[in-house]
Amino acid sequence: MKRPLILVTNDDGIAAPGIHKLISIAQEIGDVIVVAPDSPQSGMGHAITLAEPLRLQKVDIFPGVQAYECSGTPVDCVKLAKNVLLKDKKVDLCVSGINHGSNASINIIYSGTLSAAMEASLEGIPSIGFSLLDYAFTANFDNGAKFIKHLMEYVLENGLEAGSLLNVNIPDLPEKEIKGIKVCRQADARWVEEFLEAKDPRGIPYYWLTGKFDNEDTGDDTDIWALENGYISVVPSMHDLTNYSALKKMKDLENSLA
Amino acid sequence: MKRPLILVTNDDGIAAPGIHKLISIAQEIGDVIVVAPDSPQSGMGHAITLAEPLRLQKVDIFPGVQAYECSGTPVDCVKLAKNVLLKDKKVDLCVSGINHGSNASINIIYSGTLSAAMEASLEGIPSIGFSLLDYAFTANFDNGAKFIKHLMEYVLENGLEAGSLLNVNIPDLPEKEIKGIKVCRQADARWVEEFLEAKDPRGIPYYWLTGKFDNEDTGDDTDIWALENGYISVVPSMHDLTNYSALKKMKDLENSLA
Repeated sequence: MKRPLILVTNDDGIAAPGIHKLISIAQEIGDVIVVAPDSPQSGMGHAITLAEPLRLQKVDIFPGVQAYECSGTPVDCVKLAKNVLLKDKKVDLCVSGINHGSNASINIIYSGTLSAAMEASLEGIPSIGFSLLDYAFTANFDNGAKFIKHLMEYVLENGLEAGSLLNVNIPDLPEKEIKGIKVCRQADARWVEEFLEAKDPRGIPYYWLTGKFDNEDTGDDTDIWALENGYISVVPSMHDLTNYSALKKMKDLENSLA
Repeated sequence: MKRPLILVTNDDGIAAPGIHKLISIAQEIGDVIVVAPDSPQSGMGHAITLAEPLRLQKVDIFPGVQAYECSGTPVDCVKLAKNVLLKDKKVDLCVSGINHGSNASINIIYSGTLSAAMEASLEGIPSIGFSLLDYAFTANFDNGAKFIKHLMEYVLENGLEAGSLLNVNIPDLPEKEIKGIKVCRQADARWVEEFLEAKDPRGIPYYWLTGKFDNEDTGDDTDIWALENGYISVVPSMHDLTNYSALKKMKDLENSLA
């Protein structure tokens, strides 16, 4: 059987330990190409670079793996990989991460890791974003590695609904304490912001984003519930943001203009 | 009756003509506060600024309106407005735009305009993103102004489902040729990328994102259909990206690990 072609990217930058672990897992399964940002891009969401050109530099930092660093966002990396480097090739799977820190719940919309995976799904590539619930640069990415490999094999074997991607979060637990996998919905939680306000060395005020994650969604079918109970959360996600229930209710708007 | 408090933002930057028009419409209805990026931020999606501080500068460019330019992304503008400038105030409506160019269909995920509106909806503020189908800086924003005012009044009167926002696109037609409003779903279309490849003055290659919008969604219930047929499109949108149909089908994954 032909080995699958796997595109690996992330948002923490090409030098982050999380992507190194993901590459080594992907190498066990298929042929790997890496296109990742040349600098940390956390919180970049689905940003793309329009007003300036992008750079792509081949780098030789992963033994046996074709790898490029890119000056753009995570989404730019996927667009360049698909449309320049792999123009005539079928990419069988895109994996993004392993992110240093949670991308559960509402974090999916701020996350460069997940936006890269979503862009791949838009390009017709089955894709998975992986995140470990430990923000430290020195996080232990051996936790959950067995599950990551299994999920990659599952998607390669079963495919995903067109336009779908998986948002996978891994609790920060030793692998033998992880209870299993839960397929769940995105918890309806949000960030409560608290800007740090201070003055710079020239006396000019600045504001620095901080905040507390606030989950009032008490369902036991959410990603937050799964993670808090020792499971890996898998949320099948998509790019159709239409609110169909609101759409039905709002049809009267069409006739509301005198 | 107390005049509603309306927050206005955009992604084309505080000097763009589109936001000036939106402010003047909002002023007819309520008290207006403006917090907008100090530079163009098209394509920033839901990016937030984590690694550096933000600046907020009061500017006096709109007669009678409290206005601030912000060094961050459109989403940063909304977070700062809600959590710093308007900390103890109830914001009745957030409007973002008027964007220079379409944000119909998949453009919602790349658009700073719509991401700002989505952030407001996450903060509990009913919100609307407006876009005119003309990318020119000199676009005629009088087209559709009557409808924009009506939509703002409609949302102030009727509210929106919690966590919802409206993605409103306006065809580039004289107002009397606009046939009305269609409440519709996001068309399932995408961008087909074609990077411009060239060399810089030092002979180093670069890649510049370009592309063609590709719509193979032939439904007559989509935003693209509405716009092509002379209607204003209104897509009720949300931040829950869970693919519920895929979720049901994938439950077997939970028991797939030997």
